[in-house]
Amino acid sequence: MTSLHPTANGPPRSAAALVAPIAADLAEVERVFAGQIASPRPHVARLIAHLDHYRGKRLRPTLLLLTARACGDVTPAHHILGAVVEMIHTATLVHDDVLDEAALRRHSPTLNARWGNCSSILLGDMLFSHAFHLASTVGDTLACEIIGASTNRVCEGELHQVSESGNLELTEEQYFEIIDGKTAELTSCCCRLGAQYAGADDETIEQLSGYGRCLGVAFQIADDVLDLTGREDATGKTLGTDLAQGKLTLPLIHALERLAPEQAGRLRHLLNDPATPRESLLPYLRETNALGYARQRAEEFAQRARDALCCLPATEARSILATLTDWTIRREK
Amino acid sequence: MTSLHPTANGPPRSAAALVAPIAADLAEVERVFAGQIASPRPHVARLIAHLDHYRGKRLRPTLLLLTARACGDVTPAHHILGAVVEMIHTATLVHDDVLDEAALRRHSPTLNARWGNCSSILLGDMLFSHAFHLASTVGDTLACEIIGASTNRVCEGELHQVSESGNLELTEEQYFEIIDGKTAELTSCCCRLGAQYAGADDETIEQLSGYGRCLGVAFQIADDVLDLTGREDATGKTLGTDLAQGKLTLPLIHALERLAPEQAGRLRHLLNDPATPRESLLPYLRETNALGYARQRAEEFAQRARDALCCLPATEARSILATLTDWTIRREK
Repeated sequence: MTSLHPTANGPPRSAAALVAPIAADLAEVERVFAGQIASPRPHVARLIAHLDHYRGKRLRPTLLLLTARACGDVTPAHHILGAVVEMIHTATLVHDDVLDEAALRRHSPTLNARWGNCSSILLGDMLFSHAFHLASTVGDTLACEIIGASTNRVCEGELHQVSESGNLELTEEQYFEIIDGKTAELTSCCCRLGAQYAGADDETIEQLSGYGRCLGVAFQIADDVLDLTGREDATGKTLGTDLAQGKLTLPLIHALERLAPEQAGRLRHLLNDPATPRESLLPYLRETNALGYARQRAEEFAQRARDALCCLPATEARSILATLTDWTIRREK
Repeated sequence: MTSLHPTANGPPRSAAALVAPIAADLAEVERVFAGQIASPRPHVARLIAHLDHYRGKRLRPTLLLLTARACGDVTPAHHILGAVVEMIHTATLVHDDVLDEAALRRHSPTLNARWGNCSSILLGDMLFSHAFHLASTVGDTLACEIIGASTNRVCEGELHQVSESGNLELTEEQYFEIIDGKTAELTSCCCRLGAQYAGADDETIEQLSGYGRCLGVAFQIADDVLDLTGREDATGKTLGTDLAQGKLTLPLIHALERLAPEQAGRLRHLLNDPATPRESLLPYLRETNALGYARQRAEEFAQRARDALCCLPATEARSILATLTDWTIRREK
């Protein structure tokens, strides 16, 4: 996980320090993950080895383990489910890179850039399949049901986004609907699973599911801001892909809404050209304080996420979940 | 389902007559399928409507329902699982058409040709997700485990095939390993599920799983022969895609093995050029009786499939499973 910036809670803490209390559990998740997808076939094994470049933050298993810890004990089911959600997330990244024709991820060539679209599509499918197979081993059908319902929504959110690609009239409401599906649904699912399999009561499960949803929305807004303003050398991935795909994100929606008609027309003209460099948009974003607005909306969702934690007893895990929320919107990669 | 050719059992029977005894169950499978993937979003609904062109033979739910009937009663779990296996098969077809850059399927444009790769990849993912979600609703984790283990092998088989694409030294053994994964695994899984959820004993389940596996291998060999010799107007799909992708299939492997070195070199030269028309290969296939050899191997597997049915009591369902085996290798589409 990347280093954390100063937060309201004090000086910057290293990411390693932040997740130290669950380090052993995260290592166990890794072990389950690697064991499940190991393959004796050299080509498949090479692709799987390359997946290391797709797995940076481990945000989803971290959320699952921390919510478990905040509600009770971490069990073997949590380790399995941590690997499941990480596998699903990795599958979506692998397919997203094909969709975005992205060339870089974490400073390395993407799978599609290195091995072509065929292997990438099939490896993504294989990850989905292994995730569902693994989920069926926790002893009851609940995890499969919860995860299946979530991935249904994730896929629909992604399809919704593709269908709106090139739509320069996209509203804020539509934007929030899309990111609720494609991102917040899975982070919410992680927190639900963590709480559910730690034996939390229904109200706590719903609260934590809400925490994960708000955190996911905040995370995605921060990601969309980074796609416009981040440094490729810091994020290590191809940026500006939203732009090239004609996907409107919150800052641009805000700018188009606030600009005078003539200026908005000029901005639309730039957005219509996939070759427009990100820098050309900055004057429009600055004039409308669009990045400030997006950051403020991300902060609102982060606050709602923090508020949802009030239902929990004051434990170290709860405090880390709060710090993680700050990191979500302040990270540079 | 396409019409059947004359078989050893008598004159040609229409496909409708063949599946008439399970027509009501197949209709129920269709209802579950449609209900599960229905979407209120116009773009998603359009894509789903287009899936009709991907769903012709209903071979997999047919196998599942017939094995159920041959072992006992068809239950609501069978209707659900019939929809699940059809959804998984449809997902693989949608992704295969992206991989093959195929333009036609059942006389209509493929999804990728009509709506692009992004929508196709995501729709395939959505079908996988809904399949697994649906499988979790039968009341126990067994179906999820069986199906997950199968799709793991299907994906690995497909990846294996991609990794061998362009390998003109592919052996028969490697070919059979690939088709066992990418095709026979799922037909075997269908028969296992049909028998398992009809309460069959372990030995019968294994026998029927073996039936499905042999039938799947026979089916795939027949498909590979059709890809080389079938008529696009009869099959309604882009043919010769194996060739364009550098995928060696049984007839070509046999021809390369049997030809004198110089002729084999000329054939390899043709195979190395993705633009080679199928017709140019025919003299080599004729000289080595490669199509006859492939048909004979398909017949062998069909016979093993029929033999596996001996464990069942003599019922109408068993007799249809035998006729279905004949159809598998004699169809023209």
